[in-house]
Amino acid sequence: MDNNKLEMYRHSASHIMAQAVKHLFPEAKLGIGPAIEDGFYYDFELKNTLTDEDLLKIEEEMKKIIAQNYPFVQKETKKDEALKLFNSFGEKYKVELLNELQDDKITIYTQGDFIDLCRGPHIESTGEIKAFKLLSVAGAYWRGSEKNPMLQRIYGTAFETENELKEYLDKCEEAKKRDHRRLGKDLDLYSIYYDEAGAGLIYWHPKGAFVRNIIENFCKEELFKRGYDLVNIPHIAKIDLWKTSGHLEFYKENMYSPIKIDEQEYIVKPMNCPGHILIYKSKIRSYRELSIRFAELGTVYRYEKSGVLHGLLRVRGFTQDDAHIFCRQEQLENELVAIIDMVSYVLKTFGFESYDVFLSTKPEKFVGTDENWQKATDALRLALEKCNLKYTIDPGEGVFYGPKIDIKIKDSIGRVWQCSTIQVDFNLPERFDVNYIGEDGKEHRVVMIHRAIFGSLERFFGILIEHWAGSFPVWLSPIQARIIPITDSQIDYAKELKNKLSQVGLRADIDTNSEKMGSKIRSAELEKIPYMIIIGKKEIENNVISLRARKSKDLGQMPLEKFIQIIKEEIDQKK
Amino acid sequence: MDNNKLEMYRHSASHIMAQAVKHLFPEAKLGIGPAIEDGFYYDFELKNTLTDEDLLKIEEEMKKIIAQNYPFVQKETKKDEALKLFNSFGEKYKVELLNELQDDKITIYTQGDFIDLCRGPHIESTGEIKAFKLLSVAGAYWRGSEKNPMLQRIYGTAFETENELKEYLDKCEEAKKRDHRRLGKDLDLYSIYYDEAGAGLIYWHPKGAFVRNIIENFCKEELFKRGYDLVNIPHIAKIDLWKTSGHLEFYKENMYSPIKIDEQEYIVKPMNCPGHILIYKSKIRSYRELSIRFAELGTVYRYEKSGVLHGLLRVRGFTQDDAHIFCRQEQLENELVAIIDMVSYVLKTFGFESYDVFLSTKPEKFVGTDENWQKATDALRLALEKCNLKYTIDPGEGVFYGPKIDIKIKDSIGRVWQCSTIQVDFNLPERFDVNYIGEDGKEHRVVMIHRAIFGSLERFFGILIEHWAGSFPVWLSPIQARIIPITDSQIDYAKELKNKLSQVGLRADIDTNSEKMGSKIRSAELEKIPYMIIIGKKEIENNVISLRARKSKDLGQMPLEKFIQIIKEEIDQKK
Repeated sequence: MDNNKLEMYRHSASHIMAQAVKHLFPEAKLGIGPAIEDGFYYDFELKNTLTDEDLLKIEEEMKKIIAQNYPFVQKETKKDEALKLFNSFGEKYKVELLNELQDDKITIYTQGDFIDLCRGPHIESTGEIKAFKLLSVAGAYWRGSEKNPMLQRIYGTAFETENELKEYLDKCEEAKKRDHRRLGKDLDLYSIYYDEAGAGLIYWHPKGAFVRNIIENFCKEELFKRGYDLVNIPHIAKIDLWKTSGHLEFYKENMYSPIKIDEQEYIVKPMNCPGHILIYKSKIRSYRELSIRFAELGTVYRYEKSGVLHGLLRVRGFTQDDAHIFCRQEQLENELVAIIDMVSYVLKTFGFESYDVFLSTKPEKFVGTDENWQKATDALRLALEKCNLKYTIDPGEGVFYGPKIDIKIKDSIGRVWQCSTIQVDFNLPERFDVNYIGEDGKEHRVVMIHRAIFGSLERFFGILIEHWAGSFPVWLSPIQARIIPITDSQIDYAKELKNKLSQVGLRADIDTNSEKMGSKIRSAELEKIPYMIIIGKKEIENNVISLRARKSKDLGQMPLEKFIQIIKEEIDQKK
Repeated sequence: MDNNKLEMYRHSASHIMAQAVKHLFPEAKLGIGPAIEDGFYYDFELKNTLTDEDLLKIEEEMKKIIAQNYPFVQKETKKDEALKLFNSFGEKYKVELLNELQDDKITIYTQGDFIDLCRGPHIESTGEIKAFKLLSVAGAYWRGSEKNPMLQRIYGTAFETENELKEYLDKCEEAKKRDHRRLGKDLDLYSIYYDEAGAGLIYWHPKGAFVRNIIENFCKEELFKRGYDLVNIPHIAKIDLWKTSGHLEFYKENMYSPIKIDEQEYIVKPMNCPGHILIYKSKIRSYRELSIRFAELGTVYRYEKSGVLHGLLRVRGFTQDDAHIFCRQEQLENELVAIIDMVSYVLKTFGFESYDVFLSTKPEKFVGTDENWQKATDALRLALEKCNLKYTIDPGEGVFYGPKIDIKIKDSIGRVWQCSTIQVDFNLPERFDVNYIGEDGKEHRVVMIHRAIFGSLERFFGILIEHWAGSFPVWLSPIQARIIPITDSQIDYAKELKNKLSQVGLRADIDTNSEKMGSKIRSAELEKIPYMIIIGKKEIENNVISLRARKSKDLGQMPLEKFIQIIKEEIDQKK
């Protein structure tokens, strides 16, 4: 089933759901019922709040309607007749929608005893629906506005086969288990202190900050290897910088209100670019110096409506692994190839082997010349091809200042996440007058590339948690091994072991609780610690350890040195 | 000469200077002329702006006055008589001062033909001044207020011997050469973009950011070794946090104006403590978990008047190597010993072997109980003694929330800089209700320690630059070796060498300019690069390099491997 067909199929399922609701709750007033990504919904005005049991009853009623195999019948009518009809049913929301329609030609759809105002299209008959499931109920304001009544929205989904439905529901179940907000709390990784400190602002707890530190170090090492220079800029700057950059004009709703210092306005930076440009411009640059690549783990603050904030994935302050490359037009392609190579390497290292690549081209409104856009778009395309990356063109979806490549990674359960971005920028070099002295001794405009691989450390950490379901690979684990003494008499020996591990750079802790073995193992597993080193009387006598991997794998007895060898190999391979 | 005597001596020199000025410029009106740290000044109202030549003339005149050996004669008089006297001289500023004096008994001092309103004391006679020097002229508002006339302030200094004077002047000259603002520019380490981005905000250029990164990495490594946990908090937070902490009440003038987000006030953090406390409080803590040590390279923003801003040393945004230790009263001493040990180790590693330690005790206004203050002060004292550190007690100079240790480092030319601080805090645990569950199963208040070793990375970097006069030790140098090919035909070989060095973790660059050897060496020396590797035809033939250290030291020829061994040893020893 292609996407259009699936959408029609699910939209029809939503009509069937509405019919079932009207059967069970004749007083229900209908809102709207579209297909959405992964399913459909329908909004109802209802006196009682729907329960999970109600959903089961509605499902039963839907099955009956499907068994009846009512045909979906399309009918054209005039606006005043349609108004008369829906008025007579008391469907006030439909009447409101009808009143706003400009066209006099109105389409309605009927299946059995159910009539709906609808543009269609629909499937042939209710019997075509083979697999569906109602998922949840949530409150939703009529037409999304707080000023309107709150309706009840039933979410459901439908698939062509029971197998596909089951697969989808399993994935949802799996996603729930991996929810980074739950794992973030269970594994003590981070907090958001809504009341005390504010929504959308992340406080990294020791274990989370530890993983962040590994990511940062890895990132900086790669940057140095690849010819980037680190820079470091303040989080506040005079608002004038943002006037020059144009953000104050085009990006104002995402910027925070100004701070007054000595009668001048400053703002908390929403972007790092202007700061990096200032450093570039601190001296005259020769073509010999280009490309110049400034990188920073730069924390930015952007306003997001409280309603869209979501754990680590959508926040109000985040650290970008940002870089700005200043180069000549003819260096563009090589720079882009190098960036794509770095993106692939970094994503692969963190366990993301497959991704979708999109090349967004010139939109209707743009700055810069057609010729430069063409050159830059060609450079992006050629770079992708040189790197053997399959890509999809998103025509007209580039930013106004230049074409871009977006990379969406696929996680371990097949979900897709926007992650890396590579953007050519013709705008800021003009606005800030960013130049170099060419071989001809004259000033030339630089080409600028913005690029981020992780995008935001916060968001990437959220994705990582969900991708690994919290069971980070050994090299990323805050604690790599837990030493579990069977009784208190092995604690001293455990300390010795911990010391030995720490001397070779391994991170271990000791469970000194006086609980039983099984419970100690369970708690290490709950904390998703990669290895458990169990020490009893026998182990000490034989100078060995009993090793266990998370997920209940008993790896038997071995000398500590053997374990060090195993784990070090995994770490070296970033496993 | 003790400090009191030296002050009297210099104050007398300022009178002699005023006498000389009156001889040369009889129309000059006298302001005030105190002794200050390292010298003295006197303010004058004068029509012409004083030049360096005028200073030389004044010095000549002073020598004559000294040769005359006029005695300093003290005389007591009544206020109205003094007023009559200074009015008759037209000394309007003296008259203004006189009018404000409450006492009717006025002291005046005379040497030769010069009379001054002065409380004294002075030396016996002008001939006692053995060595002096006038240093500079600067504008200074009468009594420091912009509303008053601008006077001319002549700065000078005086010492007991010509030798001491010379030593002092040499030190001033040396300090000027080491000025981190000049070296920061010459070595391309950092910028402040006053006009574009704002005063007091540091932009770290690649070379500066590189050194910062080494410092940060070193710092984090030490933290992990010493049982600290990294955390990471946002730069903005609801203002409520600062109400709770008390900063809004006691520290408001150093905090920036609030930002409105969703109708609530947020501020850019001036301190990290409340954020770390939130993380501590994110779960119930048992006595078993203590001590908990949270550390962060936390960037804070504090308002400073524009007049006091000074390069990297006094800024409006800086990164603290901040840590907060939450412990039980009985753990305090051990924690303090561990901190002092870390401070000594870190400062020594960066080249500061000697420092002055101050223990500040309970001030008049304080929070907490006398008993707790006593215990904490004893713990600080005992810790210092255990670490064999000599210290001076600053009675009553503790902060209102607890006693503290301040450590002032001495740089290579003997200047003293406030650096590390260790503070016990009884206040925030009360205000934020910060507890642990004790062995008795009950809640107990934690003791909190704030500590910073570098203080601020910006300030510490400024001190480092001046301490090393920009010639950073090899391990801190952004570029450790410059490869200098004698002619273009050695460039390829130079690249091979660079590659080999980079593979063993060494940072080298190549001078590919087509200038002469001498000029390439000079420019490497100006950039204070520790080593120069010179490659000519002969070197390639013999498979060796010619090595040079900065400061014109020719180290002869050797194989590259030998050089790698030398430099790696230096780096390992953090030299």
